[in-house]
Amino acid sequence: MKRRAFLTGSAAAAATPAVLASLAAGGVAAPAIASGRMEWRMVTSWPKGLPGVGTGAERLARRIGEMTDGRLTVKVFAAGELVPALQCFDAVANGTAEMAHDAAYYHLSKSEGCAFFTAFPYGLTANELDAWVHHGGAQALWDELYAPFGLKPFLAGNTGTQMFGWFRKEIRSVADLRGLKIRTPGNNGRVLARLGATVVNVPGGEIYGNLQSGALDAAEWVGPFNDLALGFYQVAPYYYSPGYQEPGAGLQLIVSKAKYDALPADLRAVIAQAAQAENNDMLAEYTARSGAALATLVRQHGVKLRRLPEDVLTALGGAANEVLNEIHAAGDPVTRRIIESYIRFRAEVVPWSRVGEFTLEQARLLDIPHTLRG
Amino acid sequence: MKRRAFLTGSAAAAATPAVLASLAAGGVAAPAIASGRMEWRMVTSWPKGLPGVGTGAERLARRIGEMTDGRLTVKVFAAGELVPALQCFDAVANGTAEMAHDAAYYHLSKSEGCAFFTAFPYGLTANELDAWVHHGGAQALWDELYAPFGLKPFLAGNTGTQMFGWFRKEIRSVADLRGLKIRTPGNNGRVLARLGATVVNVPGGEIYGNLQSGALDAAEWVGPFNDLALGFYQVAPYYYSPGYQEPGAGLQLIVSKAKYDALPADLRAVIAQAAQAENNDMLAEYTARSGAALATLVRQHGVKLRRLPEDVLTALGGAANEVLNEIHAAGDPVTRRIIESYIRFRAEVVPWSRVGEFTLEQARLLDIPHTLRG
Repeated sequence: MKRRAFLTGSAAAAATPAVLASLAAGGVAAPAIASGRMEWRMVTSWPKGLPGVGTGAERLARRIGEMTDGRLTVKVFAAGELVPALQCFDAVANGTAEMAHDAAYYHLSKSEGCAFFTAFPYGLTANELDAWVHHGGAQALWDELYAPFGLKPFLAGNTGTQMFGWFRKEIRSVADLRGLKIRTPGNNGRVLARLGATVVNVPGGEIYGNLQSGALDAAEWVGPFNDLALGFYQVAPYYYSPGYQEPGAGLQLIVSKAKYDALPADLRAVIAQAAQAENNDMLAEYTARSGAALATLVRQHGVKLRRLPEDVLTALGGAANEVLNEIHAAGDPVTRRIIESYIRFRAEVVPWSRVGEFTLEQARLLDIPHTLRG
Repeated sequence: MKRRAFLTGSAAAAATPAVLASLAAGGVAAPAIASGRMEWRMVTSWPKGLPGVGTGAERLARRIGEMTDGRLTVKVFAAGELVPALQCFDAVANGTAEMAHDAAYYHLSKSEGCAFFTAFPYGLTANELDAWVHHGGAQALWDELYAPFGLKPFLAGNTGTQMFGWFRKEIRSVADLRGLKIRTPGNNGRVLARLGATVVNVPGGEIYGNLQSGALDAAEWVGPFNDLALGFYQVAPYYYSPGYQEPGAGLQLIVSKAKYDALPADLRAVIAQAAQAENNDMLAEYTARSGAALATLVRQHGVKLRRLPEDVLTALGGAANEVLNEIHAAGDPVTRRIIESYIRFRAEVVPWSRVGEFTLEQARLLDIPHTLRG
C-alpha cells in the first residue's frame, strides 16, 4: 500500500476546490491556545476509519490528549479532509498542520532515503527496524534527513510483514513475471520492471475492477487484515507470500520541528512516548487480526495460498540489490549514509534473527501440540 | 533467567536483616506528596544496571517522570535494595512499593496462570504475546488474575526469543538429556525432568563456577546480549537454539491497583503508555545488541552454535503439552480460562506468523545480497 494508494473515492473527493479555497483563505483556524491549552492538527494519508493504520493514527492522537489532560489535543484529518492523501509531508512542512501520520516511503520525491524508514525489499522486519531506529543509530540519521524540511520524525506503527500480492494466475518461474501487468508502487515496482513486468499505477479503490476486467493481472496491497475487506479474493484467487518488498512496513509520525522544539519538555516526551506506544500497539493489532483474516480467506473464501518459487525469490533479490546500488550512487549524502547504516545493521542483526526467532519458528513447524485433553 | 536467578551477590546481600528491620519498623518513608508531586517506589528483580531488563526498568521510570514534568516521579530499587529479587509481587501487594518491574513467571506460587504472561514452551513469540494481550482479550484475563492481590499488570518489555542454553557436551538425541545436570527453572525444568534430566537450582551468579567444576552440565540464561557478559562460553562451548521454552519472554510492570485507580486519568494514561513504549524499546534493544553479541561470541570466542535435533524438539513438545495439561487440570478457574485463551489465540496466530514473517525469513536464507558495489 504505497504512493497513490488513496487518491480515490471519498478521501480524494473531500479535497474539493471549496475546501482548498477555504484553506488558501486561511479558513482553517490556527492552533487554539487558550489558558495553556492547544489543539493541533494531524493530517493523515488514510481514509476515515481505515482499520490498522487509520484507527492507529486516531488512537495515537487520543493518547496525547489523555496523557496531557487536554493541554495538547490532536484533531485527526482523514486523507482529503484538509490535504490530499500524499501531501502530509508538505502540509507539516508548510504549516498547514502541526503533525502527520503516514508512511515515509510516500515521499521518495523528497529523498530516496525515506524508503528505509518504511521498508526496503529483503530489508528489515518490524522488530529489526525498531532496533535499527532506536538502538542502531538510525533515529539521528532520520532527524538529519528531515531537518531541512523543518520536520521531526518518529516511528509510529508497523503492519508487520506484508504479502507479495494477489495474482490471477500462478507464478511458476521468473518467466511468468514477464509482461505481467501488476499494480505495485515504489521500489518493488522498480524491481519488478527489471524482471520484465509492466508496472501499472492504479489507485487502491480501482484495483478490484481492474483485476476483474483483466486490465491488471496482479496487485499488491497490505496483508490479510486489510486485504480481506477489499474482496480481491473474488477476482484473483492466488495469494502469494512472502512480501519480500516489505518485511515490516513502518509508519511515521511527522511533527513540525519548530513547534515540537517550542513545546515544554513534558509535552515533547508525551509525543515521543505516544508514538512509541502506538508503534507497539499497531503491530500487535495487525498480528492479532491477520490470523483471523487469513483463516477466513482460506477456509471461507477458498483463497489459494502460494509461496514464490526459489528462482523468483533469488531474481527479485538480485534486482533489488541493483536498485539499492542505483539509489546509493545517485543519492544525496544523507541518503548514502542511511543506506550504509542500513546495510551494516542488517548484516549484523539477521544472523541473530535466524538463530533466535527463526529457529524457534522452524521448530514450531513440527506441529508441536498445544492441546487440552479434557 | 527465572526464579532464584538473582538471589546472589550484592543484590541479595543488600537485603540485610538491618534493612528488613528498618522496613518492618516503617523506616522507609511513605510516598512524598507535596504540592501535588508524588514519588513512587519501583522495586525490581534486577541487579543494579543489568543491561536490557534492568536498564529498561530505569528507562520506564524516567519516562513517567518526564511525561508528568515531575508530578509523578519513580525511584527504582535494584534487587535487594528494598526487597529481595523475587518478592516484587508481594512488595506491591503489601504496600512496600507502589510499582514493580519483573517477570510474571517468577510468581507461579501465586498462580500458575502467571507463566503465560511471560512465556510458555513453544508458545507465543514477542509480537504474538503483544497481540494476545492487547488485541486478543488477554489483558482482561490478566487483570482478573491479579485483582485478588490488589495489583494491576502491564506488559513492559520483552527479551525476544531466548536461547536453549549452554552445554559442555553436544546433544545428539533425547538420550543425551537423561541424567544431564541442567540449571533451568520453572516450566522448562518440569519438561526436562520428564525427559530424564536432573534439574538443579543454582542462582545466576553461581552458574559459571558450577559449569566449570562439572556440578552442572548445562545452564539456561537469556540470549547473546546478556549471556556474553557472564562468560559461560569459557566453560560450556556449545550454545543451543531454539529457546523453545521462551519464544519471547515478556516483562511486566505491576502497579498497586488501589493507588493506580486513585490517580487522575492523565497519570493513569501516562503509566500505561510508558509501559507500552518501554515494551517496544526493550525488545528493540535486545534485538540490536544480540546481533553484535552473537558475532562476538562466535568470531572472537569460538562458541559452537548448535540447533537441537528434531527428535529432541519433538520430545520437548510432547512433554511440554503434558505440563500444560497438568497445569490446566489443577488450575484455578482464571488460570484455566487463560490457558484456553492462549491455546485458541496461538492456533489462530501461528498460521499467519508462518505465512508472513517466517516465509520472509526463509527467503532471506537464500543469501539475498544487500551489498554496495563500491
